[in-house]
Amino acid sequence: MSTPVAPVGEAAPGRRADLARLSLNTATTRHLTLPEAVAAAAAAGLSSIGVWRDRVQEVGADVAAKVVADHGLRVSSLCRGGFLTAADDDTARAALDDNRLAVREAATLGTHELVMVVGGLPAASRPGGPALPYPAGAPAADGPDDPARDVVATRRRVADRIAELAPYAAEHGVRLVLEPLHPMFAADRAVISTLGQALDLAAPFDPAVVGVVVDTYHVWWDPDLQAQIARAGAEGRLAGYQVCDWVLPLAAEPLSSRGHVGDGYVDFATITRWVRDAGYTGDVEVEIFHEDVWAAPAAQTLATLAERHVRHVLPHLGGPSVA
Amino acid sequence: MSTPVAPVGEAAPGRRADLARLSLNTATTRHLTLPEAVAAAAAAGLSSIGVWRDRVQEVGADVAAKVVADHGLRVSSLCRGGFLTAADDDTARAALDDNRLAVREAATLGTHELVMVVGGLPAASRPGGPALPYPAGAPAADGPDDPARDVVATRRRVADRIAELAPYAAEHGVRLVLEPLHPMFAADRAVISTLGQALDLAAPFDPAVVGVVVDTYHVWWDPDLQAQIARAGAEGRLAGYQVCDWVLPLAAEPLSSRGHVGDGYVDFATITRWVRDAGYTGDVEVEIFHEDVWAAPAAQTLATLAERHVRHVLPHLGGPSVA
Repeated sequence: MSTPVAPVGEAAPGRRADLARLSLNTATTRHLTLPEAVAAAAAAGLSSIGVWRDRVQEVGADVAAKVVADHGLRVSSLCRGGFLTAADDDTARAALDDNRLAVREAATLGTHELVMVVGGLPAASRPGGPALPYPAGAPAADGPDDPARDVVATRRRVADRIAELAPYAAEHGVRLVLEPLHPMFAADRAVISTLGQALDLAAPFDPAVVGVVVDTYHVWWDPDLQAQIARAGAEGRLAGYQVCDWVLPLAAEPLSSRGHVGDGYVDFATITRWVRDAGYTGDVEVEIFHEDVWAAPAAQTLATLAERHVRHVLPHLGGPSVA
Repeated sequence: MSTPVAPVGEAAPGRRADLARLSLNTATTRHLTLPEAVAAAAAAGLSSIGVWRDRVQEVGADVAAKVVADHGLRVSSLCRGGFLTAADDDTARAALDDNRLAVREAATLGTHELVMVVGGLPAASRPGGPALPYPAGAPAADGPDDPARDVVATRRRVADRIAELAPYAAEHGVRLVLEPLHPMFAADRAVISTLGQALDLAAPFDPAVVGVVVDTYHVWWDPDLQAQIARAGAEGRLAGYQVCDWVLPLAAEPLSSRGHVGDGYVDFATITRWVRDAGYTGDVEVEIFHEDVWAAPAAQTLATLAERHVRHVLPHLGGPSVA
């Protein structure tokens, strides 16, 4: 028997009203299976969850959809498609196929938002790894040192492949949500580094088909952030708001340096008001990659999420839950 | 007896013509005193050097100027002023005093360019360190979570203090050169993160008094880089070009993750042509912070600098040295 899923902005029956818009991204509770994460989110009083594909695929998208529905949770987003930057045709074709699968998974899960991490330079040996050697021979006099290090051409490939995927996403009622990643990941994970750049890439497409997500960790430093959040709202492309904190020192693996809201440097009050003023009424996902958070019991992690949400985010979020 | 100092763009007598514009930044040979670094640069055939204040102050600016002149080297820049973001008056006043001293040191050394690293958020406990705790009590409903985490206000203080220093710099014939640092240093070292932002801050001032520097490590990822380099040239503010590579994995201290040109991900050919096309005719400083580079013998480091310059930078730099 399913619990009814509440409309966006509202709490499911019996869940906490002050957490009506707080969503657990399953990366935060990395060691939980999807059913475990769903149960933990519901037990903590949440009404929504953002899910990663690895945990969805373990049980299959149909079962995942049922598990989520059984607990009356909205799916705020599916993470993640992308990795569209390959220079060779075989890898590119495989990536497009995998993104079409991700679109179908999102549709099955009943979420409109498929978060896209677009990929880094072909010169990356692996995420976080050293650059591949330069090719033999002299480069063209007016070309890049190495095509695999050509960030301008790499960005063009992303644009081309978004164009190829957009009609498929539209057919399935799913939005490709471009995520700018922090510039420290530009070489190896995503050549989209600012919200403005993501919006420029999205501009040729229907806002219902290509959108953007604001993740505080990735964009808090951007001097143009307020203007670009407002632009995302005005264009109808603001598809998600993810929060976690910039903590120092960086972890050995900087991808896992994300801290709980309130543990670092980000001014959540200000950014949250910019997001509110842009008209965003959706869920606020907490997506933390950090060994300490992963080592903590899930109930404790959820309790911290709730406490920090109420203190740092909710007062600035607007909407019915803070009326 | 002094060797004559060659005009910008030219090699001093007896020095290598192909290295006419290659400058050793003393941070690259961190363990050398200023006289040692000067001798190493001259021995390697260079005609210019970029100097850090710590090594200048060890011998005093007058002696430093004489040592440099005795070896016929141009001083491409003095590193670094800045740290203008303090929220309390005493720290701010001390920082302004120290910047005035840096201006006088630059004048004594005969360089026009004083590189400014503007400082991070007041919430930083130390560079690279964790954020300070939030202040006690509830924040204002429409203010930041914490004034020490307010990046917008912190940037405003930078603008105010540049305005305070500019007349002093002008009197001494020195330019305040704003350096955008990589966004991973925005919290703890510099709230200027893009070249466009640096140019916006410089805009109210005479281009001979407030300029900008392009350091590939900090700005290579910026989707707006080509346009902003062109803008810097058009405005007469392009005061320096520093090169080093983005290498992964990041070092435990990410400040010391900078690699030799050609060891990482940066497309130096493309960026160097953008700098050339912006009309830049000055020196190209190599400023590397990396334990492995610091551990190497200086002569080997200089040889690598020369080899990489000739391969990755010189062919795209334009000017008389590649005629």
